[in-house]
Amino acid sequence: MNHSAHYVGDHTFVVERTAVVPPGPGQVRIDVAYTGICGTDLHVAHGAMDQRVRVPAVIGHEMSGRIAEVGPGVRGHRVGDPVTVMPLDWCGDCPACRAGNSHICHRLTFVGIDSPGAMQRSWTVPARIVVPLPADLPLTHAALIEPTAVAVHDVRRSRLTAGEHAVVVGAGPVGLLIGTVAQVTGAEVTVLELDPRRRALATELGLRTVDPATVDVARHVHETTGGAGAAVAFEVSGSAAGVRTATDLLAARGRLVVVAIHPTPREVDLHRVFWRELELIGVRVYEREDYTEAVRLVHAGLVPAGRLITRVVPLPEVAEAFRALAAGGEVKILVDCGVTG
Amino acid sequence: MNHSAHYVGDHTFVVERTAVVPPGPGQVRIDVAYTGICGTDLHVAHGAMDQRVRVPAVIGHEMSGRIAEVGPGVRGHRVGDPVTVMPLDWCGDCPACRAGNSHICHRLTFVGIDSPGAMQRSWTVPARIVVPLPADLPLTHAALIEPTAVAVHDVRRSRLTAGEHAVVVGAGPVGLLIGTVAQVTGAEVTVLELDPRRRALATELGLRTVDPATVDVARHVHETTGGAGAAVAFEVSGSAAGVRTATDLLAARGRLVVVAIHPTPREVDLHRVFWRELELIGVRVYEREDYTEAVRLVHAGLVPAGRLITRVVPLPEVAEAFRALAAGGEVKILVDCGVTG
Repeated sequence: MNHSAHYVGDHTFVVERTAVVPPGPGQVRIDVAYTGICGTDLHVAHGAMDQRVRVPAVIGHEMSGRIAEVGPGVRGHRVGDPVTVMPLDWCGDCPACRAGNSHICHRLTFVGIDSPGAMQRSWTVPARIVVPLPADLPLTHAALIEPTAVAVHDVRRSRLTAGEHAVVVGAGPVGLLIGTVAQVTGAEVTVLELDPRRRALATELGLRTVDPATVDVARHVHETTGGAGAAVAFEVSGSAAGVRTATDLLAARGRLVVVAIHPTPREVDLHRVFWRELELIGVRVYEREDYTEAVRLVHAGLVPAGRLITRVVPLPEVAEAFRALAAGGEVKILVDCGVTG
Repeated sequence: MNHSAHYVGDHTFVVERTAVVPPGPGQVRIDVAYTGICGTDLHVAHGAMDQRVRVPAVIGHEMSGRIAEVGPGVRGHRVGDPVTVMPLDWCGDCPACRAGNSHICHRLTFVGIDSPGAMQRSWTVPARIVVPLPADLPLTHAALIEPTAVAVHDVRRSRLTAGEHAVVVGAGPVGLLIGTVAQVTGAEVTVLELDPRRRALATELGLRTVDPATVDVARHVHETTGGAGAAVAFEVSGSAAGVRTATDLLAARGRLVVVAIHPTPREVDLHRVFWRELELIGVRVYEREDYTEAVRLVHAGLVPAGRLITRVVPLPEVAEAFRALAAGGEVKILVDCGVTG
């Protein structure tokens, strides 16, 4: 028997018994251990994505679990293997797919938003999106691999190299992971964050922090880089001020990585883009190689996945988990889907 | 004896006899053949750059001429050699210079705006910024090497490759040169231009043109690229609409090259930048290798320099040349500085 958390609209979840979906050809069924709640899930729960999400919907895409059943024709997976999922399903036929960019497929299905997700005990998915995990990796930590893959993708697209200065604008979970991955790369990292609790956590994680409400950030960055400015800025705040600050603090040929979703167009100082030959680089989700690197980083303890988990709630209390996340003060909340790691 | 055109403010030029400046150590004196008038010169003449330009000022930076005198310690130049100038003077010591980006030096002197330029018969400059020319290259055509180097730099920074689709937004002289250089690269090029005369010239030069006032450009580009969109867009219009159009017509991982100067911040659709993993790339002037390539392209006739020259006026009539350019209908006007090529 399966248990699923259904989002039914207007902040409401119903947890109920559902049928186990047997894996068809090319599919596997996973017993889900943990599913993390991310900002997009919160948007869904607040009704902001009701036009895209068809209720009742099982959401969730940051997860870990074990192979429970292997469908016909699937090779390379055995029952009991620990796994996570790269929650992208692409068409293989659109211009983006044909150009080798299937992660931004024109008809991309984001699993857990556009199709059923991992906030349930038993989850059946295509085998091609399953990512094997090392046997000794705690499944709590493994639920952080998806957001770590986001950070790995963003840092890779930024072309950040050891010794360069990077500034991360915004210290939510993704900002903290980007800061950590950038530091692993050997960069000098500064994190900007208005919220003192998030700043404190960034400091605990070994990141240098600045409060942009009390410091002239562009001046500060130029002063601490011998007048050069930063090589890379990651805009993870989603705010107009974040875009402005990120543009102002960059060095000649600096790269501004647009991580956050900006629902409305933003004013960008194109004169400075021209004057300093800056680049803006859009980034979205990840590619398979980013997952491989994320597994390596979390497994090696180079990304402090465990430190970001502030709470674990059982599946029947999923609504409370969303309330707690919305209230602030939490970083990463995991939903325990009933399969112990 | 020298003759110089002095901009003295408020659309006014005074052409007068001036002293010949003998070349000091590391300098050469050039007998100027032709000096082109560019959009920036027009801005200066209209008073828009009075805070930067100290009057009386000799402006002009698109030029050709012959070595007239070689200063102490200068090697590799002989009297009579045909030359042009890369009008940049850099400090060598700022963060941009130390990072190898001296063309966007933090203290860049743009010769012909920040220091005396080429609208005079005799011009003395540092030998290090002099670029030798093939003996059989007409000096009229050679005056187009500077804007061609701009186009070469912009296309190089765009990473455009053969077979890709590129759209040029705006068919002024720089837009036409970018379109031509992109076509030489082997790209499929479309030029957007509102002005029918400029469109007609682009067509004459073998470029495909579209009137953005009558065509839904983004749809048109997607239709003609099998739904993909263009790999590269060059924004050469300086308009908010140009930025919007260029963003909308790009393919997944497309590159928007910010060529034009946007004096005020522009709204940019950062959601599309994220969704399609677009890049915005700032470009400014050129590097030495761009000059080398520009000389090659103009010399080989691959850039139709002669076709862009619509008028040549003698130095004493420089004010009339600026009036004609401002009135529209001209493309490139050269000032004949008295040394026949």
